[in-house]
Amino acid sequence: MAQTVAEQVGVRRSPVEAYLDGLLARHAGDDSGEVAAYIPELADVDPSLFGICLATVDGARYEAGDSGARFTIQSMSKPLTYGLALERAGEEFVRSRVGVEPSGDPFNEISLHPVTGAPVNPMINAGAITCAGVLVDAVGDPLGSLLETYSLYAGRRLEIDDAVYRSEGETGHRNRAIAHLLRSVDVVSRPEAALDLYFRQCSVAVDCRDLATIAATLANGGVNPRTGLRAVREDVVREILSVMATCGMYNGAGEWLMSVGLPAKSGVSGGVIGVLPGRLGIGVFSPRLDEQGNSVRGVAVCRDLSHDLMLHLIRAGERAAPPVRSLHTVAERQSKRVRSGRQQAAIAAAAMRTAVFELQGELGFVAAEAVSRALVERPEPVELVVIDLRRIVRTDRGGLHFLPALVSYLHSHGGELAFSGNELELEFDAAAAGVRMFDELDTALEWCEDELLARAGAAAYVTSVAPAQHQLLAGLTAAELDRLLPALEPRHARPGAVLVRAGDSAEELFLVVAGRLSVYAPGLGRRGRRLATLSAGMTFGEVAFVERGARSADVFADSEIDCLRLPYSLLDRLATDDPVLHGKLLRNILGVVVASLRQANAETAQLSR
Amino acid sequence: MAQTVAEQVGVRRSPVEAYLDGLLARHAGDDSGEVAAYIPELADVDPSLFGICLATVDGARYEAGDSGARFTIQSMSKPLTYGLALERAGEEFVRSRVGVEPSGDPFNEISLHPVTGAPVNPMINAGAITCAGVLVDAVGDPLGSLLETYSLYAGRRLEIDDAVYRSEGETGHRNRAIAHLLRSVDVVSRPEAALDLYFRQCSVAVDCRDLATIAATLANGGVNPRTGLRAVREDVVREILSVMATCGMYNGAGEWLMSVGLPAKSGVSGGVIGVLPGRLGIGVFSPRLDEQGNSVRGVAVCRDLSHDLMLHLIRAGERAAPPVRSLHTVAERQSKRVRSGRQQAAIAAAAMRTAVFELQGELGFVAAEAVSRALVERPEPVELVVIDLRRIVRTDRGGLHFLPALVSYLHSHGGELAFSGNELELEFDAAAAGVRMFDELDTALEWCEDELLARAGAAAYVTSVAPAQHQLLAGLTAAELDRLLPALEPRHARPGAVLVRAGDSAEELFLVVAGRLSVYAPGLGRRGRRLATLSAGMTFGEVAFVERGARSADVFADSEIDCLRLPYSLLDRLATDDPVLHGKLLRNILGVVVASLRQANAETAQLSR
Repeated sequence: MAQTVAEQVGVRRSPVEAYLDGLLARHAGDDSGEVAAYIPELADVDPSLFGICLATVDGARYEAGDSGARFTIQSMSKPLTYGLALERAGEEFVRSRVGVEPSGDPFNEISLHPVTGAPVNPMINAGAITCAGVLVDAVGDPLGSLLETYSLYAGRRLEIDDAVYRSEGETGHRNRAIAHLLRSVDVVSRPEAALDLYFRQCSVAVDCRDLATIAATLANGGVNPRTGLRAVREDVVREILSVMATCGMYNGAGEWLMSVGLPAKSGVSGGVIGVLPGRLGIGVFSPRLDEQGNSVRGVAVCRDLSHDLMLHLIRAGERAAPPVRSLHTVAERQSKRVRSGRQQAAIAAAAMRTAVFELQGELGFVAAEAVSRALVERPEPVELVVIDLRRIVRTDRGGLHFLPALVSYLHSHGGELAFSGNELELEFDAAAAGVRMFDELDTALEWCEDELLARAGAAAYVTSVAPAQHQLLAGLTAAELDRLLPALEPRHARPGAVLVRAGDSAEELFLVVAGRLSVYAPGLGRRGRRLATLSAGMTFGEVAFVERGARSADVFADSEIDCLRLPYSLLDRLATDDPVLHGKLLRNILGVVVASLRQANAETAQLSR
Repeated sequence: MAQTVAEQVGVRRSPVEAYLDGLLARHAGDDSGEVAAYIPELADVDPSLFGICLATVDGARYEAGDSGARFTIQSMSKPLTYGLALERAGEEFVRSRVGVEPSGDPFNEISLHPVTGAPVNPMINAGAITCAGVLVDAVGDPLGSLLETYSLYAGRRLEIDDAVYRSEGETGHRNRAIAHLLRSVDVVSRPEAALDLYFRQCSVAVDCRDLATIAATLANGGVNPRTGLRAVREDVVREILSVMATCGMYNGAGEWLMSVGLPAKSGVSGGVIGVLPGRLGIGVFSPRLDEQGNSVRGVAVCRDLSHDLMLHLIRAGERAAPPVRSLHTVAERQSKRVRSGRQQAAIAAAAMRTAVFELQGELGFVAAEAVSRALVERPEPVELVVIDLRRIVRTDRGGLHFLPALVSYLHSHGGELAFSGNELELEFDAAAAGVRMFDELDTALEWCEDELLARAGAAAYVTSVAPAQHQLLAGLTAAELDRLLPALEPRHARPGAVLVRAGDSAEELFLVVAGRLSVYAPGLGRRGRRLATLSAGMTFGEVAFVERGARSADVFADSEIDCLRLPYSLLDRLATDDPVLHGKLLRNILGVVVASLRQANAETAQLSR
């Protein structure tokens, strides 16, 4: 990997890392609490270890302190196993065996439902052993599946710390009692196998980076932000995080949700994971525990992060960027088809019947509602709607739900809908719903303009002009035309033919007298960015006339076309041979360039609104 | 108000309203449950009434069914009074008298803390009476304050239904017992006054629209989205919604959070409010209650809304639009100062040392982290950073926190930061931190380019040129210059002078030979949108030469300037009097326009990336 700026200039820490360093310093002096001592492997840890790691849903990771120190995952495994059980055995089955209510009790309280005997939630030991038992029954290779899943969360191959596993097994009398109690009420069928899996899952070795990555995977809807691999289904993530929000930290569910507001889980090894859904994951490690069994500094760091960075789950004042990035009519946002003045006027006159939405972020309810509202509130019925989805990174049923209703709404007054730029699986049959799909916004805009012209009874373009009527020959006398026209070489081309290729030496202007052609940014042929579509009466090559050198774009015939070629050398000669004619031609060329400039300036003004 | 499209074309319901109609139809057949009957006013309600209203944080409101039917607010008043108590008596005081833990008990259970005797949360009657008692002690006119606050939430003057109030007072034996019990443990000091206020608050008359607006006010951080008036502080909203999330619906806190995931509160009159923070508020009314005292259809509607529209509080997969709307260098995003070719080249050569961020939405941690990361990951140190805040609608400490660190980070390698377009109170002393502030992105870009040129040892612009060296006179022979120059009228202007005003008849080209001038979109003088700044050697009036007619922009002298005026009439005469000279001038004009077109096309391509 290339050196970063920080490394080059000797500034070692980014502003975010500098913040984490400060956070570490703020709490490093707190040596209250005691390390867990029920097995020697936990008791022997250096109690001063302290690491913080923060990982975002788009793959960044920031660390401070002992973020590489190893410890065992312990109870932070519980949300992961709960998710795996939900995936493999189904929500209904799991919910019949373990509840989702906070107990308010310490982690090792038994907390079974007074009637059913089921553990009240999967974050206490009884609930976690039940989940392990569900896996033992439902999965062929429960340990293999579990390790594979944990590894997907962490983005690396995780392994069991055998010494810890053996100690846990030897000293876990209370957990053994719980397992057999669960067997007695038929919540767990094979208590010893469930216990063994539970002891193994608690003994998986991790570091702070792993914790933050696991948390970020949950924050990211189940997909590891660094590997792009899915560790758990998104609907299951919601259940995991809901339970973590109320049951993860043993203390009062209401107090944690109010004061920290992060779904979280602690482990007796001194780790804490915290999740801000859709944003980031936090991993903290510091072995000294408070009376509830939570890392003292881990809890303090979560509190401060939530407060300093405003990471609370409930952020009523939050204002994300709006889903509608821009909203225009086709008078303001035009296609690259160059229109004659008359067609421009016809489009402008009817433009209020069009709406061009560029959406960004997520196509969910908020976006659907914004589009729907903008259409309903317009003073005249909107007949042609283009929704550009190029910047949509995700759709959900909250948005897709409204597409059929939106189409019906438009159809009810003769309106039509088109999408452009979509690259996602839509889970919406656009064709069946009568919605047009375009690869590019540009072509959708062209459709919209053409439809508007058709509805106004106007042609979309001029199909042919007499050479003498061409824009570049305006104002010439009959005698001048007689002199010039024989010098212009006709060029015919079939649809799809290449008229000009980027890099070719530029030697002439083309006067289009019949058909249509399109200009594309070089390199990708007709899949490239369209720069212009021209029809009869229009000109190209006027920029290269000034700049000379090589062509900067590819030009393709869209139909059978007829052009007249006006060599630059001829124009240059006319400057001395027939300066009056030369002056007329230059004025006409100037007129073409000024019209393009007007158009480009209007587009710039709209785009930077 | 003007007719909406829907009214004009006879489509009565928007897609969102159509969805609510469907939701109403889906549940209207469910007549399970019983209306509350403990006072005649509640027992006498039409049990088939059913209304739904949804209000967004940006002021839209959608209704279906009996959304105008009146009922009393009952326990839905509890979150509002809790918030008022927190504001008036302080969090610490209130928290010493009422907890925040879910009880899992029905609304009329007493649920006091076993040690302190304090009610476990403010959503049960004991907690709500305690809050009323806090107001009675802390506020001069508790009823007046309460009604005023409730009215701010609803956006209209709310009033008490006296008949209900009298009945509540006559039959509220259990609540009276609770109040005196609270007196016995010193949680409430004046039980009768507290009770009276509590009965009155429960008797405030509302409809579904009010409920949705109240909920939307909470969703909007405490500001009523329709009136823009604040009903409650934003930090208090977080506490209200946290408690509603776990304690609002009497049933299991974990189950509600998992399956519906909306902070909510029900009332015995049959109303339910639900809040999706930052998004929307829901109000439902249907009088039949389930065994827990929640509206049967109200709960069902909340569940369906959450599921259908993906309104769950925990949305890990959610992808809001990114806070960085665009990121460019100054080679890609240039100011409106027109640069000479040489200066363009110097800017382009050093452009990778610049970063221009256009942010959108909220300047919080996510935005700050994205900016910080983009700078740290650049392959060379970024020396000049512009952050455009024009589209930032809100800042919070999660973002502001990082500004000093960002400045330090940049200063450590000689970098500088500028903001543009900010219209918010920043709570960050930019001047003290050495951050430049510009009104417009355009002027910030110009600063950035000028700094880059200065660091490269290049002049920002050409201060003067000999007339013969002017771009428009390139290629003219000495004889031609001798003929032409005397015909060009010199024009001198002082800084700030108006050279051209939009609407003036356009009659000449201006050749700038000394100083600088700027072109602005018409109407606002120098506060308008800058279209260009030109310096010596440049030209203006070339577009109007082609189009004729009136000037389309205002032009002001930025410094002492000297121009030469080339009348269009002279150019026109030259076409016949001296066509060779005419041709040369036209080619030069064409060169100026083509350069502008190139620039505009590059800007368009960048902006629409």
